[in-house]
Amino acid sequence: MRARLKDIAERAGCSVTAVSLVLNNKADSIPDSTKQKVLQAAEELNYRPNQVAVGLKKSRTNTIGLIISDVSNNFFATLTKGVEDESNQEGWNLILCNTNDHHKREKEYIYTLDDKGIDGIILCLAKEDDFGKVQGTVDLLNQLNIPHVMVDRFVTDIEGYFVSVNHEEGGYLAGKYLVEMGHINIGCITGPKNLEDSRDRTRGVCRALEEQGLDIESVRFYPGNYDIESGEMGAEFLATKGVTAIFAYNELMAYGVYRWANKSGVRIPEDISVVGYDDVAFADILHVPLTCVRQPVYEMGRESVRQIIQMIKTKERKKEKVLFQPKLMVRGSVSHIKL
Amino acid sequence: MRARLKDIAERAGCSVTAVSLVLNNKADSIPDSTKQKVLQAAEELNYRPNQVAVGLKKSRTNTIGLIISDVSNNFFATLTKGVEDESNQEGWNLILCNTNDHHKREKEYIYTLDDKGIDGIILCLAKEDDFGKVQGTVDLLNQLNIPHVMVDRFVTDIEGYFVSVNHEEGGYLAGKYLVEMGHINIGCITGPKNLEDSRDRTRGVCRALEEQGLDIESVRFYPGNYDIESGEMGAEFLATKGVTAIFAYNELMAYGVYRWANKSGVRIPEDISVVGYDDVAFADILHVPLTCVRQPVYEMGRESVRQIIQMIKTKERKKEKVLFQPKLMVRGSVSHIKL
Repeated sequence: MRARLKDIAERAGCSVTAVSLVLNNKADSIPDSTKQKVLQAAEELNYRPNQVAVGLKKSRTNTIGLIISDVSNNFFATLTKGVEDESNQEGWNLILCNTNDHHKREKEYIYTLDDKGIDGIILCLAKEDDFGKVQGTVDLLNQLNIPHVMVDRFVTDIEGYFVSVNHEEGGYLAGKYLVEMGHINIGCITGPKNLEDSRDRTRGVCRALEEQGLDIESVRFYPGNYDIESGEMGAEFLATKGVTAIFAYNELMAYGVYRWANKSGVRIPEDISVVGYDDVAFADILHVPLTCVRQPVYEMGRESVRQIIQMIKTKERKKEKVLFQPKLMVRGSVSHIKL
Repeated sequence: MRARLKDIAERAGCSVTAVSLVLNNKADSIPDSTKQKVLQAAEELNYRPNQVAVGLKKSRTNTIGLIISDVSNNFFATLTKGVEDESNQEGWNLILCNTNDHHKREKEYIYTLDDKGIDGIILCLAKEDDFGKVQGTVDLLNQLNIPHVMVDRFVTDIEGYFVSVNHEEGGYLAGKYLVEMGHINIGCITGPKNLEDSRDRTRGVCRALEEQGLDIESVRFYPGNYDIESGEMGAEFLATKGVTAIFAYNELMAYGVYRWANKSGVRIPEDISVVGYDDVAFADILHVPLTCVRQPVYEMGRESVRQIIQMIKTKERKKEKVLFQPKLMVRGSVSHIKL
């Protein structure tokens, strides 16, 4: 049972008022011997102030809400770890919410978190969110006056604070490397069409090809969905189009390409080369370690917390887009084609 | 800005008392037309009761704390997903805490969660917890009168409610399968010695061997730590001992065996066979899909929530050990040795 002021007063043999004064550092008028007794009794009884009551008084709960798609996906698990580590370090707590990529659940969670009196929300937009839905979410956050940071998924024309990665550069790194390795028939397994981060990777790939004087219309696209199965189907489709290399726009879809290759007896990289994206899971334990564009996901989680805490403290709603830089991790899944 | 009763009263053109009565369903004496106006104004202003205040009144916050080692580990990410999905379905929220396997952080989190007024805690004991430390944690939870369920890691002689897996049976399934496949020189990469779940797997392996009239002293053990690196080192060590098969006591260490095999040019399963444990990650995308003992981790997460909610509601502290059954997933990483 949580100790109350009354319990401490009984043990210390003084009044509840005296206990309250001592524990709130207002005990100027109280003898030192009583003070000592109160503090000792409080310690013995494991007394800790009721933070729900404190939260009501201060109207701050030192709690952040994190809304993501699915924590069992390595990308979001790594992000969550970063968010939680930074929160813990700064003395904040984290309420975790998974939307399973449903816009409806996203809005429900915003209401719930507001009900809990959280001080700010870090949000990764649901996969199905188009421009209108994102605007709806941001409007709701503003209407409820909740400080918020959007992480990972990114919409240029929405005003807000975003922490993401320069995905145009990420696509460029993958495209440039494939061209340097002699690949001119490239297939891309993209993310959902409504997501800007997917379109940005495509822009980057095209820039890399144009720089080398290659025809960007030669690139084959398969519309994936960021899950393993769509990677598998994408590989099956692209293989019939004569591509020599596949760039999967996230790591799970690259794993789907591996799964398809295992099943079909296709060799990576001898028969087909693969580049993945994210680099948050097990790229290096694969039989042919996966060459990958790396996103600093853990760091993005930490940065989001730094920003949200600052916004909460300063009461300033910053509108900025902070982009981390991706990095190409060359391993063994791309072969060098001699022209 | 969150709407207050005063804002609704202004918009509806009535008193704050009337608003309060209507919103708390105590408006018998208030004309229907006023009721309608109040409800409409509340909706237009997006009014929602302040749950921090409600929590104080009811002394229940409908929030559960989940304390785990590390959410970026697939095992815990899957567990967390199960916990969050069940909580969401039942209308509860989740505060997530990572201990990074430090006992000290485990205790700090219990205090913090208690401060937040959470109603119950689901806890996975830190890897370094020996019997004394576990007892200390459980004593603290009891002293603070916090309903709690311990999930995954298991201590027989501690009183409490545990949700775990029958790891003796899991070890038995792995051992029996290896013997059936003709392996008599078996190496095991164990978990930390202080963990009962690791010792249980060993007991199961020994039972399987004894059933077949094999000498249990022929089994080679390498003391692992449940991380990839210790799997890699374990494989390197066991390979020098002439084993034909390695049983890694979790999935990450099995991945470590794969990494070692990749680096050393050793073929799985032609040169060495591997059985893993957990089956929460990417066992089936590996070049040689990993044969694995499967734990129903997601289901364990859901079950823990069902139990904790029941304990909170009934105020009964149940002391039980609920064991899920493991299952062997046969894939391609074990070869058949002809004797």
